Amino acid sequence: MQQIDVCMSPDLLHLYDIKERIVVVTDILRATSCMTTGIAHGVDHIVPVSTLEECQALKAEGYITAAERNGARVAGFDIGNSPFSYMEAARDGQKVAVTTSNGTIAINKSREAVQVLIGSFLNLSAVVNYVAKAERDLLVLCAGWKGKVNLEDTLFAGAMVGALSETHQPECDAPLMAARLYAEAKSDLNSYMAGSSHVNRLKRLGIARDISFCLTLNEYETIPVLQGDRLVALQP
Amino acid sequence: MQQIDVCMSPDLLHLYDIKERIVVVTDILRATSCMTTGIAHGVDHIVPVSTLEECQALKAEGYITAAERNGARVAGFDIGNSPFSYMEAARDGQKVAVTTSNGTIAINKSREAVQVLIGSFLNLSAVVNYVAKAERDLLVLCAGWKGKVNLEDTLFAGAMVGALSETHQPECDAPLMAARLYAEAKSDLNSYMAGSSHVNRLKRLGIARDISFCLTLNEYETIPVLQGDRLVALQP
Repeated sequence: MQQIDVCMSPDLLHLYDIKERIVVVTDILRATSCMTTGIAHGVDHIVPVSTLEECQALKAEGYITAAERNGARVAGFDIGNSPFSYMEAARDGQKVAVTTSNGTIAINKSREAVQVLIGSFLNLSAVVNYVAKAERDLLVLCAGWKGKVNLEDTLFAGAMVGALSETHQPECDAPLMAARLYAEAKSDLNSYMAGSSHVNRLKRLGIARDISFCLTLNEYETIPVLQGDRLVALQP
Repeated sequence: MQQIDVCMSPDLLHLYDIKERIVVVTDILRATSCMTTGIAHGVDHIVPVSTLEECQALKAEGYITAAERNGARVAGFDIGNSPFSYMEAARDGQKVAVTTSNGTIAINKSREAVQVLIGSFLNLSAVVNYVAKAERDLLVLCAGWKGKVNLEDTLFAGAMVGALSETHQPECDAPLMAARLYAEAKSDLNSYMAGSSHVNRLKRLGIARDISFCLTLNEYETIPVLQGDRLVALQP
């Protein structure tokens, strides 16, 4: 058996040795859902950066710029953090530079892993099937909200733990807790999520349609993978 | 309504402003269960310190020294981290100096709070009743395991969230998750805990009796409170 662990916040990543592991980064609402959607719809590649300045600088190189802070699109950038805007960006094989409050920071903290994959409910089964065959220990890194744990990323981690139970055993209590929460939530994710802090934050921003889409399982087979500075489609 | 939040690891405490809050520190297996037991049985006061050296130095001042690392008693100290050894130490109103892997560190990180209380299943209702009347926001700080989240402390936090639902509302997702886990666990805490990493770690050390005792609800009415460097019984 391989091991699976769950890091519930990027602020706890220093506790995990990821050099010999695959890391699956998840930021369900909405960064990794957007990345999955964009690559699935034909975006050539995505460059995740930590600051607004780095993101803006890539505009001169022909990138569509995507920037989100506190759940909202940042003025002066081409798109925000909606999966539907990534579908539009995907026309003509565009490339995207993106910075978000939590997700891109989590990705950039994971760079020393063997492999960094982008996970979301939209590509859950694809990620599970790949990891099950990879014969590597796994860490699911939840992007959380400004360092704090959140429900949606923890539920995704729990879905991974449950689905990988034949190849990967939980390494400590975080994967156990995540799996138990997902087992309770899975029959109706939308209802279970209704009380969460981020769902309420986003609903105030009027993006209930995004939330519902981001909680859809297995819409895509695509797995974005980090290659150098770029997220590209993992080749089967 | 007041607010309740849950910090699932001392390594996330920097994200919370505790200056205007009561902090309830919990380390169910076993530091805060020991402290509750000791004070309840008549220990005069307990000094929590972070290092073995500080603990040993207090022996010269007449303290019983208690030291635990990696779940086991440290050689050269009077007692380890069993609630039953605290019952013995309580004879004749002794005083105890203690250092543990996680619990005493969490206490010492909380010193800027309005008030630092010691919580465990053993004094759950007493802590709930006090906090319900205190008209302060609350943070439950889980000691965790070397920075990682753990099940037993999260369950205690969830018990607090559920029991305080009429006076304190959850501030973000951590209290929601903790409350949902406790709601699922409470009908049989011992069975629910059986798969946890720390229970298995401690069972290898042969202290199943300690675990069962630490999961007992409302054995005591005593609430240890931090006054200066000392934990003493909160006066009603």
